[in-house]
Parts: sequence; C-alpha cells; structure tokens
Amino acid sequence: MRTDYVHGYTPAETRRLSDQAQTLADLLHGGLEYAPGTRVLEAGCGVGAQTVQLVDRHPGIELVAIDISEESLARAKERVEARVEWRCADLHELKGEQFDHIFVCFVLEHLSDPVAALTSLRKLLRPGGTITVIEGDHQSAFFHPRSTAADAVIQCLVDLQAEAGGDSLIGRRVQPLLQAAGYDDIRAEPRAVYADETLPHLVDGFTRKTFIAMVESVRDKALAAGLLTAAEWAEGIRDLERTAEPGGTFHYTFFRAVGRT
Amino acid sequence: MRTDYVHGYTPAETRRLSDQAQTLADLLHGGLEYAPGTRVLEAGCGVGAQTVQLVDRHPGIELVAIDISEESLARAKERVEARVEWRCADLHELKGEQFDHIFVCFVLEHLSDPVAALTSLRKLLRPGGTITVIEGDHQSAFFHPRSTAADAVIQCLVDLQAEAGGDSLIGRRVQPLLQAAGYDDIRAEPRAVYADETLPHLVDGFTRKTFIAMVESVRDKALAAGLLTAAEWAEGIRDLERTAEPGGTFHYTFFRAVGRT
Repeated sequence: MRTDYVHGYTPAETRRLSDQAQTLADLLHGGLEYAPGTRVLEAGCGVGAQTVQLVDRHPGIELVAIDISEESLARAKERVEARVEWRCADLHELKGEQFDHIFVCFVLEHLSDPVAALTSLRKLLRPGGTITVIEGDHQSAFFHPRSTAADAVIQCLVDLQAEAGGDSLIGRRVQPLLQAAGYDDIRAEPRAVYADETLPHLVDGFTRKTFIAMVESVRDKALAAGLLTAAEWAEGIRDLERTAEPGGTFHYTFFRAVGRT
Repeated sequence: MRTDYVHGYTPAETRRLSDQAQTLADLLHGGLEYAPGTRVLEAGCGVGAQTVQLVDRHPGIELVAIDISEESLARAKERVEARVEWRCADLHELKGEQFDHIFVCFVLEHLSDPVAALTSLRKLLRPGGTITVIEGDHQSAFFHPRSTAADAVIQCLVDLQAEAGGDSLIGRRVQPLLQAAGYDDIRAEPRAVYADETLPHLVDGFTRKTFIAMVESVRDKALAAGLLTAAEWAEGIRDLERTAEPGGTFHYTFFRAVGRT
C-alpha cells in the first residue's frame, strides 16, 4: 500500500527532517498528552524525527515505533537514545496487539489508500484510545513576493507525490479520512507557520531549512520527469529564496486531527 | 486614493458583514487591549461591523470612527448604540489630531497605495501608540472537495479587486507594508479559520454566511465583466457549497499585525 518515498534517504534529507522536527516541535506536538505507562504506537516513524519528540515530551510511555524501511529504522535508532521498541514491520503484522494511543505524522500523504491504513490502525486501539494524525497541505504555501516560477517548483512536489500514488494536499481532509475510517469525536485543526524578517528563527528554521530544503530535495526527480527545465527550476528556487529575505513573507499550514475509538 | 468598493452596500451585504463580525469576532479581536480613557481611531469603519466589537470589548475608550461613505456611516450609526464620534472624512482631514491606538480592518485591500495610507495614519499616532491592521488573503482559501470551478469564482474576487486598484491577496504582506510605512516593533500573525462538519457553527457562520456569501455578492459584476459565464459561476458556487456539506472542509487565513510609533 505504501508508495515510493518521494523525499529520498540521503544524509542531507535526514538533516532536513531533523531541523524540521526541532523548529516545528511545539507547533506539531504542543498540547498532546500521553500519560506515563500508556502504550503508544508511532506508525511510520521514518528516521525518527518525531520519535525524538515523543520520548522527550512523554516520559514513561511504552513506545513502539514501526517503519517498513530498515534503512530509516537504522538511522532512527542512532538518533533516539531512549528506550523504544523498534520494529521493521507493516501495519498488518501488528494484528492482535493493542495500544492506548497511535501517532501518525507525515505518513498518510505517501499512501494510496489512507482510509484503509487508518482503519487497520483503529483495530489496534483499545476502546477509548486515541489516534493523532498530522499532515501538511502544499496548497497552503503562499508567500510574498508572489511568483509563478516558485508556484511551479512547489507544484512539482504535488505532481511527483500524486504520480507515486500519494497526496500532498491531504492536510485539508484529515477529518473526513478519520470519519471514513470509523473514528469518533474527531477534532481537526490547522496549525500555521508564518515567517517574516521579524521572526528570523522561523525564516531560517522553516522557510529555508524546512520548506525550501524539501522542495530542493526533489529537484533531480522533477527534472528527470520533465516537469520543469533546469532554468525554470533555478528561477523558482531563487524566487522562493526571496521570500526568506528582508521584506519577504512565507505561510504554510499543517493540520492535526485527533480521533477516538 | 480609495477605489470602488467591490462588495456593494445592499441590505444583504450589510447582513453578511454583521454575521461575519459575530463569527470572527474572537479570532480578529482576541488579545487586543485598549485601556479605558485611551483615544482610538477606527479608520474605514464602513457599516460598523467591527465598531460594535471595539466598543463592546474596550469599555471606556474614546472612539473616533471615520469613513468616506455617508451611506455606510448612516448604517453604522443605526447599529452601534454606544457613544462613538462618527466622522464622514478622509484621512488627511484628521491632520493635527493625535490617537493612542488606530484600528484598520479590511480597508487596505481596497486601496491603491496602502503604504501612503499607513504613513498618514502613523502621523496621527502619539509616540508609543499602536496600529492594528487586519486583512484577509484569498489565496489562503482552500477546501475539500477540490474544484477548479470553485477556484475560478474565487479568482473573480481577486480579479475584480485588482481591477478596482486593490489587492485581495494583501494579508501576506501586512508586515512589509507596515515596515515600509515606518512603524517599529511590528508583529504579524496568521489567524486561520477552519470548518468541517464537526464545527457546524463555523460551517454556517464562516463557510456559508461569510465566505460563500462574499463570493456571491460579486456575481453580477463578475458576469458583467465577462470573467465567467452564468453556468460557470453556478458550478463554482455549487462546488463551494459542497465544502459546507458533511465530508467537506474549508480553510481561510486572516492576518493581524500590530506596529508601534
């Protein structure tokens, strides 16, 4: 069910995911509370960017982190010192186990059938347990100065993800997806990042090191797919970089939703 | 400097602005504090949709509300029972007066030279006084289900506003505008509205009665300008309405910025 992972597994990519996790940690994790002793599943932990946050913010939980990539798991194990039960597994291999909470971040965007995945996860939750889903939505990226060249490089991410069977415009539909998968008491909310020159840590940590770095990570795939020429790509990136200079602004929205069994 | 007012002055439009003010009141006004006895200027009060909030939330302020439209001011006076000093005036007629705070909401989007207006306003602030600017940004409107027909009717608002000399994508640049006008200590932040079927008051109060109603208010102008056919318009509105039905979602972002002299 999982499709090709668009962003790749290079060291630069691992660094990007780490920078992103630090800058966005409060935005994505703020307000979540997992009590000590509860059993938590992180489904699709990747290189552990969010796993670090889960163990730091919720001491005493029993965390099981799964991913289907051995390579990602190896990196995650290097990064996370706390005790985590790592498993290289697909969801269906967890059948019969039970968790108090499930955490799924930046995973559904890669799946061709997110409702099926959410339904499988629901069966792993104890009655009254919660699932937390976090996704971005690339249409929420808008900026000053405006630029159709910059819009075009962002569209490459959307197109490549769609071609791989995923959806990088999924943030807006986390609530309907959870509903279709049978969850109750669903609450979805936008969590926006906005950066301008009065907020240099966000200009650097988000606009540059998270968003532009993410776009740049698909350059070769975008050019190989013939989506843009090298010159168009360079122009788009240059215009994105202008949004991180004085006078520029950048906006992006993540969505976080919680559902219950 | 003020351009044609795109949204019109009909009773339906006055009702829409009132519904909008109620639903959005906390989002737009929350956290603002004007102490009793301070002198506050609302520049461009229109039909008084925000004036009601200012007098309710900040008892004891001395509020001066100006607008260049006699008709709007007449409606505003009917609506607001509290003591307000109403003036039918342009900004330059206030020369020599001084205020502790200035509040400007949904006004800059209509101006061909917002920096000039902000600069004139700055000269009306006492040293250390603040200006609060609130604007929307129509590119922040995205929704589920996606629809190019719905995108097209929203684009009509953007095009009509641009044609009239304004900018309905201005929200993203309130910080650079305040900076260009010479303000200090500028802080801009996005204030997002998100509605899905678990939030029926927002589906009704925002998606339907604020956003879709706003789009519908420019139907005749959009068709007269030849931007869309009547059939395309109807399709776009129908698709927007689907975002307010169960399973649909709607997202919009306002920007609020505060600057100081």
